[in-house]
Amino acid sequence: MTRSIAVRAAVAVAALLVASPALAQPDPLPSWNDGPARRAILAFVRDTTDPASPAFVRPEERLATFDQDGTLWVEQPAYAQLAFALARVVELAPNHPEWKTKAPFAAVLRGDREAMARFSRKDLEAILVATHTGMTTGDFQLAVKGWIARARDGRWRRPYTDLVYQPMLEVMRLLRANGFRTYIVTGGGQDFVRSFAGEVYGVPPEQVIGSALATSYVHARDGRGVLERPARLLLDDNEAGKPESIHLFTGRRPQAAFGNSTGDRQMLEFAQGSGPAALCLLVLHDDGAREYAYGPARGLPASKVGTFTQQLHDEAGKRGWVVVSMKEDWKTVFAFEP
Amino acid sequence: MTRSIAVRAAVAVAALLVASPALAQPDPLPSWNDGPARRAILAFVRDTTDPASPAFVRPEERLATFDQDGTLWVEQPAYAQLAFALARVVELAPNHPEWKTKAPFAAVLRGDREAMARFSRKDLEAILVATHTGMTTGDFQLAVKGWIARARDGRWRRPYTDLVYQPMLEVMRLLRANGFRTYIVTGGGQDFVRSFAGEVYGVPPEQVIGSALATSYVHARDGRGVLERPARLLLDDNEAGKPESIHLFTGRRPQAAFGNSTGDRQMLEFAQGSGPAALCLLVLHDDGAREYAYGPARGLPASKVGTFTQQLHDEAGKRGWVVVSMKEDWKTVFAFEP
Repeated sequence: MTRSIAVRAAVAVAALLVASPALAQPDPLPSWNDGPARRAILAFVRDTTDPASPAFVRPEERLATFDQDGTLWVEQPAYAQLAFALARVVELAPNHPEWKTKAPFAAVLRGDREAMARFSRKDLEAILVATHTGMTTGDFQLAVKGWIARARDGRWRRPYTDLVYQPMLEVMRLLRANGFRTYIVTGGGQDFVRSFAGEVYGVPPEQVIGSALATSYVHARDGRGVLERPARLLLDDNEAGKPESIHLFTGRRPQAAFGNSTGDRQMLEFAQGSGPAALCLLVLHDDGAREYAYGPARGLPASKVGTFTQQLHDEAGKRGWVVVSMKEDWKTVFAFEP
Repeated sequence: MTRSIAVRAAVAVAALLVASPALAQPDPLPSWNDGPARRAILAFVRDTTDPASPAFVRPEERLATFDQDGTLWVEQPAYAQLAFALARVVELAPNHPEWKTKAPFAAVLRGDREAMARFSRKDLEAILVATHTGMTTGDFQLAVKGWIARARDGRWRRPYTDLVYQPMLEVMRLLRANGFRTYIVTGGGQDFVRSFAGEVYGVPPEQVIGSALATSYVHARDGRGVLERPARLLLDDNEAGKPESIHLFTGRRPQAAFGNSTGDRQMLEFAQGSGPAALCLLVLHDDGAREYAYGPARGLPASKVGTFTQQLHDEAGKRGWVVVSMKEDWKTVFAFEP
């Protein structure tokens, strides 16, 4: 090569080596309106990555944890995983002729929405056991992948994995570009979410923590060890289960935590304990036109898991947690929006 | 800068960008004698990282799992963690005057080695509960770090963390330099090993999987959430517990697994299921002069956890697992050797 090309190459390589990701990307949060939420996120990234800042966090310690349902993707009118379970009942029905007359399966097979809306916790557990257990981990993930590819939600008629919030994807990317590992910490099923988290969120399976069954290792006849899924819950990753599992999986305390409900409160508290620069953020669903409006919900017990209660809203104010109004703070909700 | 410096800089940078780690380091395994074990390790790295090889593994999927006791460091005459527990009994004794006359603590306080050698499983559990539970995860790790800094083993009179096998550190480094994530998967306590794994092995806490207590999240009065350690075992990472926990923590199947006892058999089987290039390796303790000689042990039941039995040796032969003779294959055992 000629010298001038060499010079240009050297300069280009040097630029690659020194350019910070934040400089390389003029607006890392294009789907966010200017406001306190956007500013808090940018300030957090600046402070934790500036070696001169008292809030600096060493790269290997940078950790951000995200709830999934209602924080990264739509959770209304029902969790996607429940839609999967109901579809799976229909799919497995030919092997279970008795389901035609047996509760709660009969209601699912009849498509009886009213009866399904009245399902008790025990009914739902029976459906989860029938659809989520008794197979190997590999077969379960194949079933999830197949469903994800085929299923469409009832409102937008799109794959469920299209219903992820574009602004949150931008936050995840911004954090990763600044050396944070992004973990999903979900009350939903760990193997369920791992089936698509890589493609959808850029989060590898080892960074998906979720409610999990105990598995049972079996040495198959072909000499290949496989893991079966018996009906025994090992981890319930809601409320206190979230910080407990974050410790179990990482041995670290996150500096940033993102949630949307009382089930995430303890995870946010845990992150807040990391220091004064901690970023604790709650997504408030207040946009019925573009998504759903169901918070802050009044008159619910403080311990009601899975909702953004008025108490949680008050607590956020007292603790300095950032409340993101989907309506005010998000320019775009979904990537597919015009 | 002048043009000629720029040219040299560009060439140097280009060299950095294209040089493979294997080329940059003429002998990545200097503590290994030439032999089938060393050759198998090098062949594994070559085959799994060569895009033209049918055994190629994509970088994000590269995973290697290592047992700790007896595989990465000395486990004789007793597990280091037991030495920690006994030292902790002495340390905590002033708060427990009743221990002076209460079994099994009295024997520890008297330094009665014969009585300690006869401890039943129940005795050991009582000692583990008294020394490993009832504090926060942070306080427990401080106690371990303090002990590691002070304690010396009985034979070499060195910190326990000096008793790591230099050849295995080289294997870990070689694998990491080739894009593998190295995980420790230990029957020992997860929080115990995490207290020193970063410094000693270069393995961050999120890559240490071990037997683990359930923790209990508590929102302390100062608003800082902490995790307490009640006396409830959540994960027993021996035998089938190893592949089960590897799945729980990573959602992946390792391509290489390293062990030394019947407690590791299932982990090696699990790795073998990754494909024909899988590397399954067992460290055989046959060097009483430089370390200890206790395998292969005859006349023990196949299920005896924690020993290299004759059955395991036979199985290794049948399955093509690599048996590393410490005596023959290791030029050096410890970094402190002359």
